[in-house]
Amino acid sequence: MLAEIARRFGGELVGNPSVRVERVATLESAGPGDIGFLAQGKYRDRLRSTRAAAVILPYTERDTTELPRILCDDPYLYFAQVSILLNPLEQFTAGIHPSAVIEPEAQVASSVKIGPGCHIGRGAHVGEGVSLGAGCVIGDLAKIGDASLIHASVVVYAHCVIGKRAIVHSGAVIGADGFGMALDSGQWLKIPQIGRAIIGDDVEIGANTTIDRGALDDTVIEDGVKLDNQVQIGHNVRIGAHTAMAGCVGIAGSARIGRHCTLGGGAIVLGHLELADGVHISAGTLVTKSIKRPGSYTGIYPLQEKGSWGRTAALLRNIDKLETRVRMLERIVAEMRGKD
Amino acid sequence: MLAEIARRFGGELVGNPSVRVERVATLESAGPGDIGFLAQGKYRDRLRSTRAAAVILPYTERDTTELPRILCDDPYLYFAQVSILLNPLEQFTAGIHPSAVIEPEAQVASSVKIGPGCHIGRGAHVGEGVSLGAGCVIGDLAKIGDASLIHASVVVYAHCVIGKRAIVHSGAVIGADGFGMALDSGQWLKIPQIGRAIIGDDVEIGANTTIDRGALDDTVIEDGVKLDNQVQIGHNVRIGAHTAMAGCVGIAGSARIGRHCTLGGGAIVLGHLELADGVHISAGTLVTKSIKRPGSYTGIYPLQEKGSWGRTAALLRNIDKLETRVRMLERIVAEMRGKD
Amino acid sequence: MLAEIARRFGGELVGNPSVRVERVATLESAGPGDIGFLAQGKYRDRLRSTRAAAVILPYTERDTTELPRILCDDPYLYFAQVSILLNPLEQFTAGIHPSAVIEPEAQVASSVKIGPGCHIGRGAHVGEGVSLGAGCVIGDLAKIGDASLIHASVVVYAHCVIGKRAIVHSGAVIGADGFGMALDSGQWLKIPQIGRAIIGDDVEIGANTTIDRGALDDTVIEDGVKLDNQVQIGHNVRIGAHTAMAGCVGIAGSARIGRHCTLGGGAIVLGHLELADGVHISAGTLVTKSIKRPGSYTGIYPLQEKGSWGRTAALLRNIDKLETRVRMLERIVAEMRGKD
Repeated sequence: MLAEIARRFGGELVGNPSVRVERVATLESAGPGDIGFLAQGKYRDRLRSTRAAAVILPYTERDTTELPRILCDDPYLYFAQVSILLNPLEQFTAGIHPSAVIEPEAQVASSVKIGPGCHIGRGAHVGEGVSLGAGCVIGDLAKIGDASLIHASVVVYAHCVIGKRAIVHSGAVIGADGFGMALDSGQWLKIPQIGRAIIGDDVEIGANTTIDRGALDDTVIEDGVKLDNQVQIGHNVRIGAHTAMAGCVGIAGSARIGRHCTLGGGAIVLGHLELADGVHISAGTLVTKSIKRPGSYTGIYPLQEKGSWGRTAALLRNIDKLETRVRMLERIVAEMRGKD
Repeated sequence: MLAEIARRFGGELVGNPSVRVERVATLESAGPGDIGFLAQGKYRDRLRSTRAAAVILPYTERDTTELPRILCDDPYLYFAQVSILLNPLEQFTAGIHPSAVIEPEAQVASSVKIGPGCHIGRGAHVGEGVSLGAGCVIGDLAKIGDASLIHASVVVYAHCVIGKRAIVHSGAVIGADGFGMALDSGQWLKIPQIGRAIIGDDVEIGANTTIDRGALDDTVIEDGVKLDNQVQIGHNVRIGAHTAMAGCVGIAGSARIGRHCTLGGGAIVLGHLELADGVHISAGTLVTKSIKRPGSYTGIYPLQEKGSWGRTAALLRNIDKLETRVRMLERIVAEMRGKD
Repeated sequence: MLAEIARRFGGELVGNPSVRVERVATLESAGPGDIGFLAQGKYRDRLRSTRAAAVILPYTERDTTELPRILCDDPYLYFAQVSILLNPLEQFTAGIHPSAVIEPEAQVASSVKIGPGCHIGRGAHVGEGVSLGAGCVIGDLAKIGDASLIHASVVVYAHCVIGKRAIVHSGAVIGADGFGMALDSGQWLKIPQIGRAIIGDDVEIGANTTIDRGALDDTVIEDGVKLDNQVQIGHNVRIGAHTAMAGCVGIAGSARIGRHCTLGGGAIVLGHLELADGVHISAGTLVTKSIKRPGSYTGIYPLQEKGSWGRTAALLRNIDKLETRVRMLERIVAEMRGKD
């Protein structure tokens, strides 16, 4: 019931308070029983044609629809809260599948679900309420914090630590060796990677994301960090709390990323750099130097039709020649004016 | 026998029609019993030195060799057809490995092969003639279409659907949560991802590629799409039929890619953009705006020797200053001319 | 004991030779029993404040500290050697876990450790002293060379070969099909990928890295190559001995990379290109043409604050117009001078 939602999350309810709301949906696909939302005015058309039972709107859109509605400051956040209410995490029945292998001295809480084919290493610790999907491998002495949800086929290397309420998606690999080598007469000598990967509480790690263990000290992912799929975190990196990274981001070894940063998809941060708190990096941007002030930074090469690209690229590559021509002109013009 | 091939696939046979052809090979490595092909004149040298038993050529190369040959319009396609004929898919013996775990209510066709350690979720559906390699995890109520070939260690999340005749390579993850979060006083609130990932017929998905489920509606990969390795497809994306993406491509959430598009390796498409049918994006290009007309687009920063890069980069970053200098010169020169 | 280390690896020992050294550590986190190192003068502050028992230094830093120290030409390499000495590879007990599935005709050496849930294909060969983590899948007739360390959840496709002393991290996929297709009236026809992936000796392969099998001939990774996480190697690629690639590098099909090359994180090499021996490519660089001379190459778009980016990008995209304006000015100025 809409009134219940407004009572719980606030905002101003306009229209029939007893309309039934059972599911969240987009404005386009919503039907009876569904609640949708409008975050930005530019999708107002969708609001006019929606068949949703109710909608969540900013105060500025109060009169755009006749539908039962909740007006609030941040419709996207409000919608998130409603969605969490209507889509509670699936409950599971605790139990260890008979095909799972638990090595000696592992401590597995009784409220845990361990899927088929999991392997829990010697002395590993799996906290209360943890769920491990099929085929997960938890290394010797590794720790998984309470209430964490580890999807199928996740690998956590020995000694690594994952905090509470983590969500780790399939194919993620936590704690593989960092890329540390010394050149010895043209051949690479592997440096033992003896640090750990330490993941804080409330962290989400996307599918096939990799987080390397530290070379000597630990790689640290602080609380509330959210990493999308196929992110690569090098050894000794530290990522500040509540920072989010979209898909395919790469953070090279020993970089330090501040708190409350965001990195767009495919962005790369070079090794040993430091990004201050509150730095926002555009998708596809290569960060080549430390950034000391919060703010938004970008480095995106503009797109163009292929036919015209060749000449542009040649001019760009030779921009120093263009600059020389301009300097020459400036000198000549100055001389000519001098003569006047 | 070469004559049999020509009878089946057409083209003009020149030379001994009864030469034995048992394998396909490159011109360089071919030997007796092998058939090779030449697609472009620039590799003509290889044709002259090959030890292949027969070759497939464009009509324009009719007289470049004395070897038994088939002349045709598209030697590469012709070669593909011959290779498929000579390298039929391996037949397998149906059966469920005793170590596989099939949950209740799962529907598994009798012609299926399920490898060791697979886990088939409750109510999942595995169609006729499907082969699942070792260690695959098929979530509750997920569906795998007939005749699909799922290699080892693939994860398909609950409720997701894969069409017929799919080929999915190892490490691919289909249907993990999209990256959907709302900011709540500086912390990220996870939005439940309740859509599905729906994969059409005849789709190939590369190793370690990830395709997220939709946030509310579904992520959709249409028929005949081919994705290479380590491709990342965000939530709510729609990819049109017969589009192909090379390795490491990233498509951000809610982007819509047309039919018959191609994306080169490492290309990135930002969220919510639309690409028309028949759009071709160069490798390494970041697409930052929607593209409404078919055609080829690129955005590649030119490569140069490192020594000269620093100055070029500084000039590029400050190109607005260069433009100001040119504008100033234009004004001065105009004034000087006015005085003449 | 420090004296023992100096005896083994050389260098000049200054200070107490009998100081006890049991672990390696960074200068910042070192304590009693730890040895640290200083490779570059710019971290000299850390040397002054370290609590390490001993340090490894370049000769130039002889007098920067009073601590027991070893002076040498290459402290980083020296440190690597000491770390290897102090952190020997974990010994394992040979044995095949009862849940592993070994197909008929597989040859598994008696000194091998095979983890839970592994699947060793028909006729596969696993050499002496190999360790396979949990859930590895080794395809039919594939070969794993002696003393290789294969972490959990690695997939090696049929017929592929891994050399001796390899280290392969979790989630790596060796030998999936290359991305080979021919267009047939707008639809993609898959070309059978019948080559293999052949990996030399002493190769390290990072987590979730993918190396495709060849289309006809083999994909070849020569001895001593080091690949970081999430690297993608296309079909028919050849990578020369002792080349190293950082995370997220992509090498497109049929490219040939020389020996002793390095590629920074996220670099991409387009298909069919050739890189000479000793070529070094910066992180984030797209290589669009073959490189015939050893040296360092880069193509990095400079980073800037977002506010100023729009104008820069517009000027860059239209640099041909700027060049035209300069040309025009040059003509006018030449005319004006001619008149003088």
